[in-house]
Amino acid sequence: MDVLAAGHPARGELAGSPQRLAVIDLGSNSFRLVVFTASPEGWWKRTDEIYEPVRIGEGLGESDVLAKGPMQRAFAMIDVFAHFCRANGLYGNMVDAVATSAIREARNGEDFLVRAREMSGLSIRVLSREEEARYGYMAAVNSTTLGDGCMVDLGGGSMQLVRVEGRLARESGSWPLGAVRMTERYLRGRGPAKRRQLDELRAHVAQELAPATWLRRSGTRLVGIGGTVRTLAVAAQRMEGLPSIGVQGQIVKVQTLDTLIARLSELPPAERAEVPGVKPARADLILAGAVVLREVIELGGFNGIEATEAGMREGVFFERLLAVEDPPLFGDVRRASVLNLAAQYHVDEAHTAHVAVLALGLFDDLAAARLHPGDSVERELLWAACMLHDIGMSVDYDDHHKHTRYLILNAGLPGFSPREVALIAQAARFHRKGMPAAGELAPLLSEEGDAGRLDRMAVLLRLAEGLERSRDQLVRGVGVDVDDARVRLRLVTDESATVPRWAARREAELFARAFGTTLEVD
Amino acid sequence: MDVLAAGHPARGELAGSPQRLAVIDLGSNSFRLVVFTASPEGWWKRTDEIYEPVRIGEGLGESDVLAKGPMQRAFAMIDVFAHFCRANGLYGNMVDAVATSAIREARNGEDFLVRAREMSGLSIRVLSREEEARYGYMAAVNSTTLGDGCMVDLGGGSMQLVRVEGRLARESGSWPLGAVRMTERYLRGRGPAKRRQLDELRAHVAQELAPATWLRRSGTRLVGIGGTVRTLAVAAQRMEGLPSIGVQGQIVKVQTLDTLIARLSELPPAERAEVPGVKPARADLILAGAVVLREVIELGGFNGIEATEAGMREGVFFERLLAVEDPPLFGDVRRASVLNLAAQYHVDEAHTAHVAVLALGLFDDLAAARLHPGDSVERELLWAACMLHDIGMSVDYDDHHKHTRYLILNAGLPGFSPREVALIAQAARFHRKGMPAAGELAPLLSEEGDAGRLDRMAVLLRLAEGLERSRDQLVRGVGVDVDDARVRLRLVTDESATVPRWAARREAELFARAFGTTLEVD
Repeated sequence: MDVLAAGHPARGELAGSPQRLAVIDLGSNSFRLVVFTASPEGWWKRTDEIYEPVRIGEGLGESDVLAKGPMQRAFAMIDVFAHFCRANGLYGNMVDAVATSAIREARNGEDFLVRAREMSGLSIRVLSREEEARYGYMAAVNSTTLGDGCMVDLGGGSMQLVRVEGRLARESGSWPLGAVRMTERYLRGRGPAKRRQLDELRAHVAQELAPATWLRRSGTRLVGIGGTVRTLAVAAQRMEGLPSIGVQGQIVKVQTLDTLIARLSELPPAERAEVPGVKPARADLILAGAVVLREVIELGGFNGIEATEAGMREGVFFERLLAVEDPPLFGDVRRASVLNLAAQYHVDEAHTAHVAVLALGLFDDLAAARLHPGDSVERELLWAACMLHDIGMSVDYDDHHKHTRYLILNAGLPGFSPREVALIAQAARFHRKGMPAAGELAPLLSEEGDAGRLDRMAVLLRLAEGLERSRDQLVRGVGVDVDDARVRLRLVTDESATVPRWAARREAELFARAFGTTLEVD
Repeated sequence: MDVLAAGHPARGELAGSPQRLAVIDLGSNSFRLVVFTASPEGWWKRTDEIYEPVRIGEGLGESDVLAKGPMQRAFAMIDVFAHFCRANGLYGNMVDAVATSAIREARNGEDFLVRAREMSGLSIRVLSREEEARYGYMAAVNSTTLGDGCMVDLGGGSMQLVRVEGRLARESGSWPLGAVRMTERYLRGRGPAKRRQLDELRAHVAQELAPATWLRRSGTRLVGIGGTVRTLAVAAQRMEGLPSIGVQGQIVKVQTLDTLIARLSELPPAERAEVPGVKPARADLILAGAVVLREVIELGGFNGIEATEAGMREGVFFERLLAVEDPPLFGDVRRASVLNLAAQYHVDEAHTAHVAVLALGLFDDLAAARLHPGDSVERELLWAACMLHDIGMSVDYDDHHKHTRYLILNAGLPGFSPREVALIAQAARFHRKGMPAAGELAPLLSEEGDAGRLDRMAVLLRLAEGLERSRDQLVRGVGVDVDDARVRLRLVTDESATVPRWAARREAELFARAFGTTLEVD
């Protein structure tokens, strides 16, 4: 049993009062300090971050040594991190500083580390290739529903691949195929990329990965982490006209990736940020990264790449948070996500849990009466909407249904697809009044039947909320009688429950739209 | 010294651990239960609310008694409130239930109360006219900068007026001129309002208010509370094409009010919700309320009405929160608003306070060098943006500048006008990157020079944030040298501060746009 899914306080080394962990990631492309906080109330999240595209790996491909300029930028940034940690009371095992490919493989990497440690007082550890792969795996498996498939972590210096079976890491490897390195080696020109350059890069990737024969046995699902994957996911969303609600769970299809590679190739590096979704700071690196990933897809026979916002840093944090689990995995990623978000906003647990019980009870009874398909995923999304419907009260009581939508869309729910997050957010948005509609999220809710799903989720949540108007579980349960085109609710309660009845009757119009029947409340 | 403005824990009866007060307002038009929470961390806010337009005063104008139907609705709702309080552990002096005009003045009001108390176990007190007026006054003076002027509280049954001088209540009165009452007496028809009906209503208001000769001596500023005022403020915003960021501080001009009255009069009551901003539940009452308020403006010679979202319920809460003050007033409403919002989101106080010190220091030095006007209000808005810039981190670290904007716009800042709130929110929105622009808030930022104000606020906040990159006050201060078209910053620091220098230099482009000079950082 994992700690968050069960709604229990976080355990492991982070148990007790709110605990923080600063993960410092000295990557080949960027340096990042991320502070994670785990509360005894059962939630965890990133609470701070400092990011700088230091590019310590710049020029490393040619010389095998860290160059002077990059090292100076690195020392200055490590100094900032050290200051930040001291200023924020982060010391000892509350700080975990890790260095990856560039520093690990440079001939003067050890010299650099000696000076960095001395200057900053930080204990920096160099991750082995295996450790780096394992942290990427933990990030992927704890932020998506990946059960069987493959994880790819493409950084600036190296790329890690892990084959996953039954959520466990089975095979893994690390290759010096990072985006900075490949750009410097194969795509140096200032003009558009040449066909020959791209072919050489592809051939190099294929040759390097040839020994990983297990790649072909990884199934069709590929989860990707790292800045290249996130950038490609944003670009894919723009290309497909999808609203921007974060890239968590966004799938970059093979065809979309091919189109993006074609567009990027036609532009000189300095202009690649013209492709919507590509930021200037990454414009020169994105093409090489995209080509490497495309070749991984080709070699493994994957369907595309599913992006996750979690990265190696989250892996380091999960190892600590879930220390009592072996392996350190959430029991149910989707459930853990919902409970984690709910716990951040101090909702009235007895109320939301009872709203969920009432709404799911209605869902089941109406499905049994064949008034809707009773799909199990829809049921899970309804549960999530019930658990989260009131979190917007933390912004302001007025319009809290709209604030709930905002918070869900912006914080995200790892394990759910963007479409599923949109359904949850939109059902919560309509938990008080108004006729449900997809609004700006329409491009995400384009699966057949989504309008009906949203109606059903919203009206069941509203009925349950109305029955829980006094928030004291006055209405213990609801009986459902169905005859012809009429649904009659019988409230199970010891008291008069006049207001719950009024509240429930108000939903007759939406109920009729959702289920095609009249609603009566006894 | 008031408790919130000083950043101290809330004192008075609400001191210690987080304290809650449920105010139950049994008004003539609506019943409302509002839970206020005051935290020892120094913030307070509404944390829950149940609202129902019970209309207990329905028919009261004709008969002088509470009618059977309205009383039944009232008992059912009071039962819900009692359940809610028990379910939420609110009892004894944590609940303050007050009844106003309708119940106070009905011949069977006492019978109603006896039964309501017996049934619910709630201690309901009937407010005298003076008490009701005083609570309205406390709400107005603690949620706006009203120093000299008048407060009008228009309810369903009665209207209270309080003349304010030097923030103190000087004269007051209460009249049975509420919106429900006046609608029933003067505007009963189902068709458009007749000229004669409106004239009779106006004459009645004038006659009733004639004894309040002090009304003419109240100056030109009128602050209005109650649902009628809020509805008119929303309608005014729609009419003027302003973005909807709440009505706090929105001024309804006389001319706008006249246009609204003319439009509403032309429509039958059932269709008045067609006027944008008017909700169906209030469509039948809004015209009478608007006419009463228009007559108050006429008689007092006011400039218009300034809406506040605080109401009598907030007055009851403020009396408790500010119990150690006499009278119970915030020392500085604007300052208290900013600190209250900041405290809700656990910002790093040492960091935000130092960002404010650095930004305001730059503001002052650049004003001394005549590079900008050095307006004191702009300085205060810059301070507010500094204090609040990081609150969006509570939603998600990514895009926290955008979340900050959302939280500021949606929670509101009592004491600031919508335009001022927009400037603060937009400056915070651009505290990390991007070229500042008004975006959707453009209609609010239409005063001459607003674009320049926003640029100055954003770039000074960004410079300060860059200098505070390590969040440990490494850069203690900044010296400013100005010659010709060049500004040179000298960082006061004991250490190398390489990164703060980089960060500050990055702002040269925006600095040039804001101040018309180049920026150098030594």
